Amino acid sequence: MRKVCVIIGSRANYSSIKSAMRAVRAHPDLTLQLVVGASALLDRFGSVVEVIEADGFEPNARVAMIVEGETPGTMAKSTGLGLLELPTIFEMLKPDVVVSVGDRFETMATAVAAAYMNIPVAHTMGGEISGTIDESIRHAVTKLAHVHFPANAQAASRIIRMGEDADRVHVVGCPRVDLVSEIMRTDGGLGPTEWLEREGAGAHITLDQPFLLVSQHPVTTEYGEGERQIGETLAALQELRMPTIMLWPNADAGSEDIARGMRKFREVHRPEYIRFYKNFPIETYVRLMIGSACAIGNSSAPVREGAFIGVPTVNVGTRQQGRDRGANVLDAGHDRAEIVAAVRRQISHGRYESDHLYGDGGAGPRIADVLAHAPLRVQKRLAY
Amino acid sequence: MRKVCVIIGSRANYSSIKSAMRAVRAHPDLTLQLVVGASALLDRFGSVVEVIEADGFEPNARVAMIVEGETPGTMAKSTGLGLLELPTIFEMLKPDVVVSVGDRFETMATAVAAAYMNIPVAHTMGGEISGTIDESIRHAVTKLAHVHFPANAQAASRIIRMGEDADRVHVVGCPRVDLVSEIMRTDGGLGPTEWLEREGAGAHITLDQPFLLVSQHPVTTEYGEGERQIGETLAALQELRMPTIMLWPNADAGSEDIARGMRKFREVHRPEYIRFYKNFPIETYVRLMIGSACAIGNSSAPVREGAFIGVPTVNVGTRQQGRDRGANVLDAGHDRAEIVAAVRRQISHGRYESDHLYGDGGAGPRIADVLAHAPLRVQKRLAY
Amino acid sequence: MRKVCVIIGSRANYSSIKSAMRAVRAHPDLTLQLVVGASALLDRFGSVVEVIEADGFEPNARVAMIVEGETPGTMAKSTGLGLLELPTIFEMLKPDVVVSVGDRFETMATAVAAAYMNIPVAHTMGGEISGTIDESIRHAVTKLAHVHFPANAQAASRIIRMGEDADRVHVVGCPRVDLVSEIMRTDGGLGPTEWLEREGAGAHITLDQPFLLVSQHPVTTEYGEGERQIGETLAALQELRMPTIMLWPNADAGSEDIARGMRKFREVHRPEYIRFYKNFPIETYVRLMIGSACAIGNSSAPVREGAFIGVPTVNVGTRQQGRDRGANVLDAGHDRAEIVAAVRRQISHGRYESDHLYGDGGAGPRIADVLAHAPLRVQKRLAY
Amino acid sequence: MRKVCVIIGSRANYSSIKSAMRAVRAHPDLTLQLVVGASALLDRFGSVVEVIEADGFEPNARVAMIVEGETPGTMAKSTGLGLLELPTIFEMLKPDVVVSVGDRFETMATAVAAAYMNIPVAHTMGGEISGTIDESIRHAVTKLAHVHFPANAQAASRIIRMGEDADRVHVVGCPRVDLVSEIMRTDGGLGPTEWLEREGAGAHITLDQPFLLVSQHPVTTEYGEGERQIGETLAALQELRMPTIMLWPNADAGSEDIARGMRKFREVHRPEYIRFYKNFPIETYVRLMIGSACAIGNSSAPVREGAFIGVPTVNVGTRQQGRDRGANVLDAGHDRAEIVAAVRRQISHGRYESDHLYGDGGAGPRIADVLAHAPLRVQKRLAY
Repeated sequence: MRKVCVIIGSRANYSSIKSAMRAVRAHPDLTLQLVVGASALLDRFGSVVEVIEADGFEPNARVAMIVEGETPGTMAKSTGLGLLELPTIFEMLKPDVVVSVGDRFETMATAVAAAYMNIPVAHTMGGEISGTIDESIRHAVTKLAHVHFPANAQAASRIIRMGEDADRVHVVGCPRVDLVSEIMRTDGGLGPTEWLEREGAGAHITLDQPFLLVSQHPVTTEYGEGERQIGETLAALQELRMPTIMLWPNADAGSEDIARGMRKFREVHRPEYIRFYKNFPIETYVRLMIGSACAIGNSSAPVREGAFIGVPTVNVGTRQQGRDRGANVLDAGHDRAEIVAAVRRQISHGRYESDHLYGDGGAGPRIADVLAHAPLRVQKRLAY
Repeated sequence: MRKVCVIIGSRANYSSIKSAMRAVRAHPDLTLQLVVGASALLDRFGSVVEVIEADGFEPNARVAMIVEGETPGTMAKSTGLGLLELPTIFEMLKPDVVVSVGDRFETMATAVAAAYMNIPVAHTMGGEISGTIDESIRHAVTKLAHVHFPANAQAASRIIRMGEDADRVHVVGCPRVDLVSEIMRTDGGLGPTEWLEREGAGAHITLDQPFLLVSQHPVTTEYGEGERQIGETLAALQELRMPTIMLWPNADAGSEDIARGMRKFREVHRPEYIRFYKNFPIETYVRLMIGSACAIGNSSAPVREGAFIGVPTVNVGTRQQGRDRGANVLDAGHDRAEIVAAVRRQISHGRYESDHLYGDGGAGPRIADVLAHAPLRVQKRLAY
Repeated sequence: MRKVCVIIGSRANYSSIKSAMRAVRAHPDLTLQLVVGASALLDRFGSVVEVIEADGFEPNARVAMIVEGETPGTMAKSTGLGLLELPTIFEMLKPDVVVSVGDRFETMATAVAAAYMNIPVAHTMGGEISGTIDESIRHAVTKLAHVHFPANAQAASRIIRMGEDADRVHVVGCPRVDLVSEIMRTDGGLGPTEWLEREGAGAHITLDQPFLLVSQHPVTTEYGEGERQIGETLAALQELRMPTIMLWPNADAGSEDIARGMRKFREVHRPEYIRFYKNFPIETYVRLMIGSACAIGNSSAPVREGAFIGVPTVNVGTRQQGRDRGANVLDAGHDRAEIVAAVRRQISHGRYESDHLYGDGGAGPRIADVLAHAPLRVQKRLAY
Repeated sequence: MRKVCVIIGSRANYSSIKSAMRAVRAHPDLTLQLVVGASALLDRFGSVVEVIEADGFEPNARVAMIVEGETPGTMAKSTGLGLLELPTIFEMLKPDVVVSVGDRFETMATAVAAAYMNIPVAHTMGGEISGTIDESIRHAVTKLAHVHFPANAQAASRIIRMGEDADRVHVVGCPRVDLVSEIMRTDGGLGPTEWLEREGAGAHITLDQPFLLVSQHPVTTEYGEGERQIGETLAALQELRMPTIMLWPNADAGSEDIARGMRKFREVHRPEYIRFYKNFPIETYVRLMIGSACAIGNSSAPVREGAFIGVPTVNVGTRQQGRDRGANVLDAGHDRAEIVAAVRRQISHGRYESDHLYGDGGAGPRIADVLAHAPLRVQKRLAY
């Protein structure tokens, strides 16, 4: 009976591992342990921990570990806080394997703590390419991890080229696509939208006409540029004047720059077409992608899950640069005119064909199966 | 005028970067900044900081960051402590580039803090292969670093295969070899040995007959095995009964196991042929390697600097497994008979030819030159 | 030449020590060192560090140390972060005496770090009485401090009754009153108010009619009650419908509860008479107290500086319970009707006589003088 | 059913609370929770956690929190580490009351964390007087604590004079005396001493002639003096040449100075009359006090438990200055001649009458009873 400890630090983390958590919990040879921390605990980011509990998962520990400030320095310190606390928790929970999800800053704490403590590390979403500091974090975690769960063959190939043993690399697909697939298999519609007014703040909009879905995060390696960058996107929205659902940025360094830009825009322009949200239950977000005329910003979701959905996407700036993408993605720089043009082109194109680039919807059970049976060795050695 | 900030966390760190520090300090376009922390501050490990100051370097900051216990958990926590403090210090010193040395646990804090803070990271000793958690740390730091200073072409090739841009990889040789080369160019002898009695503890030995030099550290990924492992080595020494200089282990997880084994052996056997030392000035250690009949243990020094010196070496256990080595190294398992046999074979062979496998003695100035002139970009992206 | 190191962690801290900082800087036998941290660094709290720099002080170090969440647990962790970082900074700055200001959670880190490090601790605002955890912190810091600067004789008497040596207790007055006194000596008017529109958010108000000044912070020992408590105050404002300047709460545990209550009220009622501010330069805040018809909430300012000014004040709830107060303060419970009644009574009364209960305006130079000449002993011993 | 969480950080802590832990565990209305951390986890200090487990207590959490170095700065940092970790653990264990024992540096973390988190703090050993930083810590913890368990009426009176509510102050006696009383009620002899040879290091001694018991800790406020101070004591022992049991110092700042002095003395003089121990089970230590001709040093044990036992004691230096003491204690400065003279006088006097100055042996059950039934309020307010 292996104990599988999943660490969740953000809303994105949770959607990236939820289907695997369900599969681990359901597996006869596995016990699920759950540590929730970082921005997943914060009201400002929508208290993801409450969503997790509402989904029936009970955290074994909660670790407040975000040093406030959202500067590059506090991002490092937050990781340090995680590294100070996770060892005590791992000693209490004694997991057989720890799951480190993706590439956000706090997952480095998970991977370092577990690897140093001779606890095998399983890593999802390795081998992908993007911009921002995530690119470095993702590959550094790969070098600390003992079992790899890339989303597709391209990513697997990169992991192996980086010197990892091929027999520890398991192409499983992305668990985020599992959630998309499940929703599309059932209804796939937007469903009831009474939350639209109850949650969020800003304009009163309806989703019965074509609407935009916007999510733009800071690029840590372009720290200090965020307010200008979001300004261009907001100017584009101002010109497009379509019903828009817009998310506040995540907790990366520079988040405050983007939030400030959004607050100022809102004060000055009082846009009657944008409603702002901190966070959505994952299912709602997927349904919004399915329903939206165009997804805009630099989130990975419209590129990853978006490929499966076929949602027309305008990817802005460098944050997703280099990432494998399907036909549904058009790039734009931080330039209002470019963004407007790309959005108009996407809206006139409409929905794309579904592309299984990031998985076919069966990642969760595959991950659980490997975790239950794969040999778990802690001594790594470069394969060349 | 670029500010180059070097972080030193241990005696091994210092000898691995000293010649580069001298070259940086002497370079007209560079300013040296120095942060000393971790075990380099501890009396128990010989107060390396005093050696550093005696060499004329003035630390800009000292960071106590070792969480006591030497367990896998405290190794992770110590790294966390470093990650909490280095950002504040980097904000005070505002370096243009940070130098992360080698592969010990605390250097991960250096690399993560600097990379997250968009400060370019230069890394020495990347691309090498060994056992223990150092193997994972070394390659994870490579994935966070922006400029690479491998010791030889083999290591450079591995760094590039891991996806780093070839134009950021500079084969410079190992700065530790610079110190060796300097000593061998001048006299190369043992020099005066009045320290032999003044320092250390244990038996009263002389070095005018063939003597052994022993240094065995814990293997973090074999945590809990240390006392048994050192026991075999000590039993071999008991059989060899030659004048022996033996070092206490470093601060890795499991250090206490090894130290306990050594203390017990000393209490029980009161060996009249071993003298124990916490630490040596680097130059003394090099002279001891030059003078010794055989180096024993699992330190990297007899493999790296030892290649240049040609010192007969018996490498014990897995800690150096996979590392590029010259003809001077024989392997032995943790088995007293194997160790004795290998040592006797090495003694009868005598000194080997000098091998430039880890450099030719000119690494320091090459590193300074690259740091002064290389473009420093913070956004990385996998090269394939 | 004694080095005096002042630690500032919040906007309140700064106004509580600013006049002493000026006096220290001007003193021929003293050197001022300055560490700025905690919420004084955060944009959300108005970036007090920028105000400090605009006033001509240059921080020697900035320490991000707020663990986000504003729960009782993160308040403790933030203090822990301070305790981890301040020792390194004190070792760099080598102060002869450290000034710990008041009673907010992070000042415990200052007092503990300095006292443990045998650096004499000078403490301002000791011996006062209030509610919330501040009450415990204040007296605990007194027991760690070596030089005491109470604001008045009552406070001094309590410090001595707690067992401190009378010859280490110096009644100097509160430095916050120095700023008030200075302003009232010159003009004392509201001055130009073009900032009124430029800063803040919410309604467009003018200050040429009687206006209210509201500042209500969480009571940490009543954690979880904040949203209800601020609700009553907001309901009272709703009934009073006077031009109102309202501040967001400080960073204590429960801050988010109060902020949430304010945000919801604003969304629902869109009050056309309240303008919200994060923070003011101290001088502006003093001028607002001088000009306002009534100060409302649970901040200590209208009780302390307010006594000198004579500003009619309605003190709500337990946060200031037990504090020495002048005639200008009326108490009200968390009850909208009680608050409304008290405010109306105060407005009809108008300005009170100036009361020197918290000092006469000369605290800063007295503090500097003591710091320059008092004997500084680190070994304390209960005086009975 | 109240949950009582005891935090143990050192061997001294454990002996100071063990009888209360047993009483809490046995109480029908109480549940015992146990957190073991700091030097209680360290092999170097005799792994107190193993003793605790051997006594049948199961720790709910273990917190490595000693930052190595034993300087004033690391003592502060260690406290900071505790403050970072305890909140997470308190959130997991949800205690109704936390017990903070005595006055060592790490107990400040316990008191601050719990008080900030609105968890009532019970404090033992408050109101006493001593030297070193413990004096400040003890009283600062009193100001944070909500329930007080002083050892005697004198201490209770001081706590009340410091402004604590008299109805929260319970004179119970010292739980350490409970252990002494229990042993003396049964046999009270030295018991079997086969451990004498099995444990420890140094000379081979027997206890059938009059022997000395020596324990000398650093005085943090006299940091840097430790090596000289222990030197005088060792010189006195050298002159006395009696069978001597000597303990290594605790983990306070300056510990390494004292240990260094002891190691050097041992290397140089190879004393054939001293045996060195890291630690004893509490019962053994008590039996040694009962059996010894004279206790020497600056530990509180011969003053506190020693009063009950009547053990002739020579108290050296300022560490216990001001502490209430019985007739059994003679003071000496750090001067070999003074120490020798005092020891000779004590040996010729022999055992003193038992004095109940620090309790009568029934503290544990009284503490449990109060914890079960006393009202637990978190808002404190100075009582004058």
